[in-house]
Amino acid sequence: MEFLQQKFSVNFSYKVFFTSSLFETSNTTFINTVSSGLQEGFTKKIFFVLDSGVHEAHPSLINAIRNYFSVHRQVELINEILIIPGGEQSKNNEHYFRQLIDAINDHRIDRHSFIVAIGGGAVLDLVGYAAAVGHRGIKHIRIPTTVLSQNDSGIGVKNGINFNGKKNFLGTFAPPFAVFNDDQFLLTLSPRQWRAGISEAVKVALIKDKEFFVWLEENASSIVARDAEKMNYLIRRCADLHMQHIGGADPFETGSSRPLDFGHWSAHKLEQLSQFEILHGEAVAIGIAWDTMYSNLCGKLSKEDCDRVLILMQNFGFDITHELMQVEGEDSAILKGLEEFREHLGGQLTIMLLEEIGRGIEVHHLDADILQQCGQHLQKFENGRVPA
Amino acid sequence: MEFLQQKFSVNFSYKVFFTSSLFETSNTTFINTVSSGLQEGFTKKIFFVLDSGVHEAHPSLINAIRNYFSVHRQVELINEILIIPGGEQSKNNEHYFRQLIDAINDHRIDRHSFIVAIGGGAVLDLVGYAAAVGHRGIKHIRIPTTVLSQNDSGIGVKNGINFNGKKNFLGTFAPPFAVFNDDQFLLTLSPRQWRAGISEAVKVALIKDKEFFVWLEENASSIVARDAEKMNYLIRRCADLHMQHIGGADPFETGSSRPLDFGHWSAHKLEQLSQFEILHGEAVAIGIAWDTMYSNLCGKLSKEDCDRVLILMQNFGFDITHELMQVEGEDSAILKGLEEFREHLGGQLTIMLLEEIGRGIEVHHLDADILQQCGQHLQKFENGRVPA
Repeated sequence: MEFLQQKFSVNFSYKVFFTSSLFETSNTTFINTVSSGLQEGFTKKIFFVLDSGVHEAHPSLINAIRNYFSVHRQVELINEILIIPGGEQSKNNEHYFRQLIDAINDHRIDRHSFIVAIGGGAVLDLVGYAAAVGHRGIKHIRIPTTVLSQNDSGIGVKNGINFNGKKNFLGTFAPPFAVFNDDQFLLTLSPRQWRAGISEAVKVALIKDKEFFVWLEENASSIVARDAEKMNYLIRRCADLHMQHIGGADPFETGSSRPLDFGHWSAHKLEQLSQFEILHGEAVAIGIAWDTMYSNLCGKLSKEDCDRVLILMQNFGFDITHELMQVEGEDSAILKGLEEFREHLGGQLTIMLLEEIGRGIEVHHLDADILQQCGQHLQKFENGRVPA
Repeated sequence: MEFLQQKFSVNFSYKVFFTSSLFETSNTTFINTVSSGLQEGFTKKIFFVLDSGVHEAHPSLINAIRNYFSVHRQVELINEILIIPGGEQSKNNEHYFRQLIDAINDHRIDRHSFIVAIGGGAVLDLVGYAAAVGHRGIKHIRIPTTVLSQNDSGIGVKNGINFNGKKNFLGTFAPPFAVFNDDQFLLTLSPRQWRAGISEAVKVALIKDKEFFVWLEENASSIVARDAEKMNYLIRRCADLHMQHIGGADPFETGSSRPLDFGHWSAHKLEQLSQFEILHGEAVAIGIAWDTMYSNLCGKLSKEDCDRVLILMQNFGFDITHELMQVEGEDSAILKGLEEFREHLGGQLTIMLLEEIGRGIEVHHLDADILQQCGQHLQKFENGRVPA
């Protein structure tokens, strides 16, 4: 059997910056990053895409960006700043993807130019996908503006859009050129958005870092009361844990295991069933509660640890279950999420459960009867809740 | 300035097999490759997409594939075998991309399943792109059926579709799972297709391997007379040189240099201007003749070497120029190809020329006046041709 063997490695690296007021002209973090290694006499273009929610909360941002690049002229700002509706709708409607590809074409943005997305996770996913496939990959910069995108989705290597209601059906693994977390964007988040991003921090603490979980327990009330310094720590620690995992054994997820998706199999489906009325982070909170309860009911996790998780979720103000999560027999809508989760990741179904706080364990089957009991137990727990 | 540093490497490897009659049940090359490392009790799906030209020339192929997997049952053949019109039209019309995404959805093909494309370079590029973005990357197998795809486009890491008439405007770098070159497909190629793939071998010889160029000179007449053994050597040597280059310094082309695109800046534009009447390999032959003549006229390449290249092209039966290549002033249509080439690759314009046979040299500017002279000289050379 004759063959030629191809074999090579590709190195990826990028920085996630933590900063304030990124586009104040005195802040040179951004311009230094995009102009490093620039050839003499050669100008790169930079194209901005803005989440409509960010634009509404920060109406002066566009002018700040224009002013920044009129002072820092090492790159050429493309005058049009494209505004895309925020939230999951940007990933559901192919129109926005097409709008981005047209912009790449019209503005003649090449592979050495930059496409910058400022916004929540959905807009970052959409823009990241367009940048990844345009000319086989244009340099992409992310400026996440929500807790969730700053500590999880915006700092990783994935992008994507939805198709036929299936989340991230189309997408790629494409590390960004750089990420800038600006804490000033957090100040204008609604209480719901502020809270929603916290669930990913609980998640990563539960599977990887008991010490961080204890910190979350101790600081829950000040985080809910919008202590900015505490939130900055939460984001940074959560981002660090996510990045360590991604940079580890399998960055492009060639295996069937995805520990960071603890609590996510049902969350993805719940989002879709609610027609994205439930935010991703809220759905993840419910998904975590379910898989924690499952871990207890199947005998892997102590009742004490299980209760600690549920109480922490409630202290953060999360619902821990939802009527769309009802499991009544094998045909229940939410159970379809299990097969869709398997299908998206491929190969054998692999679900993360908990052995104890700070340590996960993978299983390859979930039992419908136990899931039904999860719903009943969680409802009882919720009913027994002592109002704060 | 606070930041977290992300840094990791991703290893890629795949084999390019050289075989005959791939789907004869006694040939286990294919089944051994797709079933290696398979988990016990777990079946992977395999979905085939077939170039209409291959289907017409090999009407029994579909039955052969079905029979092969009825004997070798380690993977589950999806019953539908999708036929896509061959040639550039498959990359120009988004309908075919959508058809593939629908098939991935309908047949519930996951990331551990296989999508196999059998066909010429265009169909392989299209299917490779759909596989690369479906679920963020489904395992993709290529079975190139033309000289060109077996020695160049089918064995590399790129895929793509066209957009607004611009070649490969959308695409990714995504190494295949495996490639199978079956020499039986070459037997049914038209004389035009047989010839077209030869230009990429001349190209890679010119920039990298003088010995191979001399071999091409010595064997041109028997290759034109369809000596299968000689063609197998040509394909294998050309594939090897391409793979060595790709596996070298910059597999995903992060820089502005692309030596393997010698002769391609005008070829891409010429294809488009001819509305893809001219085959890629034919356009590359003309592009090579032009950039060789340019290398001579700008003083880098001797007249003797230049003539050797043009004569070899003619001996293979290629045209060395075309009326659409006319350069009359800065606005000539073909010159737009220079800017589009720069834009697609990004950064500084970087064009490969020749210093001598077997050694290229990069420049960052082409002169319109010299290009105009190229057209005149090549026309004269063509007119003075001694008929074989």
